[in-house]
Amino acid sequence: MIPAEPLYKGKAKSVFASENPDELIVVFRNDMTAFNGVKHDQFTDKGKLNATASEFFMKMLESEGIPTHYIRMNSPDTMIVRRLTMIPLEVIVRNVAAGSMTKKYPVTEGTVLDWPIVTTDYKDDERGDPMINDDLIQVLHILNADELKQVKEMALRVNTVLSRFFDECGIRLVDFKLEFGKAGGKIFLGDEVSMDSMRLWDKKTGESFDKDVYRFDKGDVITAYRNVLNRIIPGAGV
Amino acid sequence: MIPAEPLYKGKAKSVFASENPDELIVVFRNDMTAFNGVKHDQFTDKGKLNATASEFFMKMLESEGIPTHYIRMNSPDTMIVRRLTMIPLEVIVRNVAAGSMTKKYPVTEGTVLDWPIVTTDYKDDERGDPMINDDLIQVLHILNADELKQVKEMALRVNTVLSRFFDECGIRLVDFKLEFGKAGGKIFLGDEVSMDSMRLWDKKTGESFDKDVYRFDKGDVITAYRNVLNRIIPGAGV
Ligand SMILES: Nc1ncnc2c1ncn2[C@@H]1O[C@H](COP(=O)(O)OP(=O)(O)O)[C@@H](O)[C@H]1O
Ligand SMILES: Nc1ncnc2c1ncn2[C@@H]1O[C@H](COP(=O)(O)OP(=O)(O)O)[C@@H](O)[C@H]1O
Ligand SMILES: [Mg+2]
Ligand SMILES: [Mg+2]
Repeated sequence: MIPAEPLYKGKAKSVFASENPDELIVVFRNDMTAFNGVKHDQFTDKGKLNATASEFFMKMLESEGIPTHYIRMNSPDTMIVRRLTMIPLEVIVRNVAAGSMTKKYPVTEGTVLDWPIVTTDYKDDERGDPMINDDLIQVLHILNADELKQVKEMALRVNTVLSRFFDECGIRLVDFKLEFGKAGGKIFLGDEVSMDSMRLWDKKTGESFDKDVYRFDKGDVITAYRNVLNRIIPGAGV
Repeated sequence: MIPAEPLYKGKAKSVFASENPDELIVVFRNDMTAFNGVKHDQFTDKGKLNATASEFFMKMLESEGIPTHYIRMNSPDTMIVRRLTMIPLEVIVRNVAAGSMTKKYPVTEGTVLDWPIVTTDYKDDERGDPMINDDLIQVLHILNADELKQVKEMALRVNTVLSRFFDECGIRLVDFKLEFGKAGGKIFLGDEVSMDSMRLWDKKTGESFDKDVYRFDKGDVITAYRNVLNRIIPGAGV
């Protein structure tokens, strides 16, 4: 049973308490936002599509030895997860220059980076998610040196697994954002791994299959999301 | 002889070619700017005061084994330096939380950090000097891993030397910005070490003796700068 009131209503998901105190119920809503909430719309099936992708990738990562918060699905848009104390960081892995990286630094969109890099933003909507570096993360007591090392290693391991998989599906994993949390002294991958949190380009045409379709009005975002699901889960028939 | 036209006219200094191709002539002007040039004024003696401080600290750092661009003074506001290929980074060392750090992250001004930290901004006025991290510095080919390690070690070494010295003068070195450059395959400290590039607080009263006096209209900036010079160089009589 899902309580009437969420513990937390985020920009795209609502988080509810569960009868089990170690678990949470995450509902992937149809809300779509961009530019820190400035752009906002609703799309039928969007929650379900992202929940399905997230389920698929969390299971894949778990099977590759990466601890995730995923427990089970409750319905197509509702995931039961391990309750974590979230680490207030957006951990970003980049394989190809795109988005804010090309706006901030002298590098053109599409440049393949010599190796995958990790950048981190301090997750705080009111502060506009400012970039943060390793020294600040430690001195502000967000993570200690060992935890930070673990988080970065996990993020790069996720990248290895996902990049290989997407490549086989004819898709280039350009970059993505992860969130981690702690439970019982251990670090888990939390939040979501979905079309909202990744940049995905068709390997042949360069076409976007991700939230950029919505951000920059490149076409029908739901068609793009369905396209990804049908490529990654053959016969998904979503 | 100083050529009529500078090679480069920055926000506070002008850089001229010298007859010796390995050297440059740096004139510390009386211009004062803040907030990336939005605030702009001129103050009599300002160039001379900063040049004198910079000379003093460059010599001190050189004597402590840190290679600097300093060669000699030409006049009280004019320094002859080794010509460097500048690294486009502002290397910031922080001992106490202040300025942008307290605006961007949840930490209050004056919090003493557990240990000194280094942060880096990509030096580019048109881009607003965005923060950059170690991974980006390397993948954008600004510095390789070894050079980055050297730069950070040099910055922290400068901090050790300057913090100890200021402490003996009753001043707290809160934070400061350095710029480095390369010549003959070696890394040198360049630019300036002055009241414009450091945050200095009176150890007893907390009073600012630095560019914050100008930034936030806390009083007479030239009196503050003179105050620093008279404390660090007894009998300077500037
Ligand atoms: N396993 C978990 N335990 C606790 N909180 C979680 C977990 N997974 C994700 N969260 C948090 O739940 C929220 C998900 O909703 P979302 O719409 O993404 O919010 P936001 O707008 O803050 O990004 C996020 O704040 C995320 O950090
Ligand atoms: N030894 C050096 N060799 C070459 N350039 C230098 C050296 N030292 C400093 N510079 C550069 O000279 C300029 C100094 O002028 P400044 O007014 O500080 O400029 P800016 O507005 O770019 O900060 C800076 O761009 C700095 O990077
Ligand atoms: Mg979110
Ligand atoms: Mg300068």
